[in-house]
Amino acid sequence: MTTYRIVQRKRDGQELAPDELAHFLHAYAEGRIGDDQMAAFLMAVFFRGLSPAELATMVDVMLHSGAVVDLTDVAGIKVDKHSTGGVGDKVSLVLAPLVASLGVPVPMMSGRALGHSGGTVDKLESIPGFRTDLSLDEYCRQMERIGCALIAQTDQIAPLDRRLYALRDATATVESVPLIASSIMSKKLAEGIDALVLDVKVGNGAFIPEPTRAEQLARTMIEIGERYGKTVVALLTAMDRPLGIAAGNALEVEEAILALRGGGPTDLRAITLALAAEMLVLGGAAPSLEAGRSAAAAALDDGRALEKMREIIEAQGGDARVLDDTTLLPRAPVRRPVSAKESGIIQAMDVRAIGAAAVELGAGRGALRAGIDSAVGFHIPAKPGHRVQAGDVIATVFARNDAGARRAGEAVCGAITIGETIESEPLPLVLRRITPA
Amino acid sequence: MTTYRIVQRKRDGQELAPDELAHFLHAYAEGRIGDDQMAAFLMAVFFRGLSPAELATMVDVMLHSGAVVDLTDVAGIKVDKHSTGGVGDKVSLVLAPLVASLGVPVPMMSGRALGHSGGTVDKLESIPGFRTDLSLDEYCRQMERIGCALIAQTDQIAPLDRRLYALRDATATVESVPLIASSIMSKKLAEGIDALVLDVKVGNGAFIPEPTRAEQLARTMIEIGERYGKTVVALLTAMDRPLGIAAGNALEVEEAILALRGGGPTDLRAITLALAAEMLVLGGAAPSLEAGRSAAAAALDDGRALEKMREIIEAQGGDARVLDDTTLLPRAPVRRPVSAKESGIIQAMDVRAIGAAAVELGAGRGALRAGIDSAVGFHIPAKPGHRVQAGDVIATVFARNDAGARRAGEAVCGAITIGETIESEPLPLVLRRITPA
Repeated sequence: MTTYRIVQRKRDGQELAPDELAHFLHAYAEGRIGDDQMAAFLMAVFFRGLSPAELATMVDVMLHSGAVVDLTDVAGIKVDKHSTGGVGDKVSLVLAPLVASLGVPVPMMSGRALGHSGGTVDKLESIPGFRTDLSLDEYCRQMERIGCALIAQTDQIAPLDRRLYALRDATATVESVPLIASSIMSKKLAEGIDALVLDVKVGNGAFIPEPTRAEQLARTMIEIGERYGKTVVALLTAMDRPLGIAAGNALEVEEAILALRGGGPTDLRAITLALAAEMLVLGGAAPSLEAGRSAAAAALDDGRALEKMREIIEAQGGDARVLDDTTLLPRAPVRRPVSAKESGIIQAMDVRAIGAAAVELGAGRGALRAGIDSAVGFHIPAKPGHRVQAGDVIATVFARNDAGARRAGEAVCGAITIGETIESEPLPLVLRRITPA
Repeated sequence: MTTYRIVQRKRDGQELAPDELAHFLHAYAEGRIGDDQMAAFLMAVFFRGLSPAELATMVDVMLHSGAVVDLTDVAGIKVDKHSTGGVGDKVSLVLAPLVASLGVPVPMMSGRALGHSGGTVDKLESIPGFRTDLSLDEYCRQMERIGCALIAQTDQIAPLDRRLYALRDATATVESVPLIASSIMSKKLAEGIDALVLDVKVGNGAFIPEPTRAEQLARTMIEIGERYGKTVVALLTAMDRPLGIAAGNALEVEEAILALRGGGPTDLRAITLALAAEMLVLGGAAPSLEAGRSAAAAALDDGRALEKMREIIEAQGGDARVLDDTTLLPRAPVRRPVSAKESGIIQAMDVRAIGAAAVELGAGRGALRAGIDSAVGFHIPAKPGHRVQAGDVIATVFARNDAGARRAGEAVCGAITIGETIESEPLPLVLRRITPA
């Protein structure tokens, strides 16, 4: 069958046989068809979806397009966490060392900032000297030695997914449940996990805002995991407001350090503990979620999680003194407070707009921006449901210059709706827990 | 607005403002965005359609991407005909000289073979010496001198449409009503017409097989014409069987010559007369369709149409002796009869399969085939409803070699379904006539 016919059949809602789809994906991987046919195919998938068998083929071809890491030499059940992304989501920076400090190995390959959302790798790189580009060999050795590594997806891991991801990012085909699920799972299956906890974001700052479709995404990933013998559990969590107070790379590292010291914003701590409890149970380190949560809270409060983070930073060439002195992190020269223009109750926050304003400041990636600025971002202590007076400071902008700070301040102000009454309740921090059937 | 957002909004079914869509199309024309974004956009249009305003912008940008011919120096109302394409459709070769012989100027730029369908330009080029690549200047002068020119779409006419067409042909986004309508009309508006008759094919050999959607296509083109002050009339005609008997370039020229001499297959003559009547009325050369039909029949029967074709062939450098001696046309060395395998009534013909078999023989273009073979093709006198005996010759293959002839014979045999009863009536030759509201 020609690749044209394959696009046409997907367009017309017909199911592709495994060898047809695999042929198409290999043809793209090997350069025998171009971005044009693949872009049309991806858009057809956006509208038509993928059958379970097509999804399985997609994951399999992407997974085996590169190396599949073998961590059997690392003792214990390896458990990772993946978040579908949002604004202010610095959970990985707290969670990975926390869970590893309790004896469960955490092999974590993360992504970079994408669209309006931040990326763990960019955040880590705001720690002076921190290397996220370990080789697969260094990654395996560090996992054996200290039970945790925080690295970027290497070129060897699911290279076909990397190419498809870049193409989707250019062609408005990101927000598709089967494409998101297959992309995430092909990477995670390649990194050597035994089990996975998913933090699936819901609300206006999430790539899939609707809880129903987010649940569908979670179930799709759980089913992919099952086919490979990996247990996957998902929490649906709130992204109708930024997580925590800080948004921006170094600002988020600072906030994560506060949490690793047993402090930090309550929502950040709560979500970290909920995810940690799942990972500890999956990793065989806690008999119940309740026990896992207590153990994790203790490890935050008595410094064990912080010490594990110190080991990780030192192992990856970073300056671990930032854990004791956060002024060693990059700082933006301009700080500008943002005041409420009226009195009332915060009704809603446009999280995508806040994320876009952070990108505009330099904290994320525009289509043509090569690098990012670690130092810039926001503190936004305001949350939906808070009562404010006109003139109250509802946010602080950290910027390179006054003009950027003013623009960003206005954007944040415009993204926060203040009214007389609460129109709709903010989402609960954890909406739902989804487990294999 | 970024080009990404434009794709995204079309994907999500939002209407694009004229300047947004124009910006996107210009960005593609100027190479600022690639085939990947445009392919994704075209697939989104396949699913979401275009609003009337979006369609108008699409036509306008494609039309003005190149030269718009001015034929005001040619006396009379210039009327062209366009067919949406099928197998055995050699009507233009008869119709253009016929209508021109009755004093209505016919400026005709045609396409080449595409997919399973043939192309007028390829057919004309099987006449030794015939040049279809006239410059726009030569085209205008010939129109002034003899009132008809049969040429290929030049690089100067709607070049953006040419690029988009090639991209659609690679990405399975051909079969979209607004994309077909805007592509045809941007080219036709550029060639200098005052009015246009559309032959919109219906049935399994048409690009849009369903009469309802074909009518929608016709109405869409009629509305585009109205916006530019051009009257457009459409006939929906049958393509549930090949038109006439011959399929293949030189074979079809031969059959067209028979029709120009007043003979040829009855269905070819009937459709030609129906379309000629429309063109003569639009061109002010006949007071009614009935009068137009009579005048056209007379011009076929008394040789005026044939003599106009002689003028055209001579003007374009071709060997006009083919009109008197069709053995001067290319002939394939191998002829192979195809016999019915069983007795019964012909229930259906898979026209696409017949067209694909002709492409396979070399009469059309596969994705990688550079040239075509003028000499090969079929004679298929069989039609749905005919009663045949096992062993009756139902077709003849004209091929380069025995192996090709055998394969093609089997393909044609497989494309003709013989059964005991008539399961469904063949389509009437002309299903419907559609005029401006």
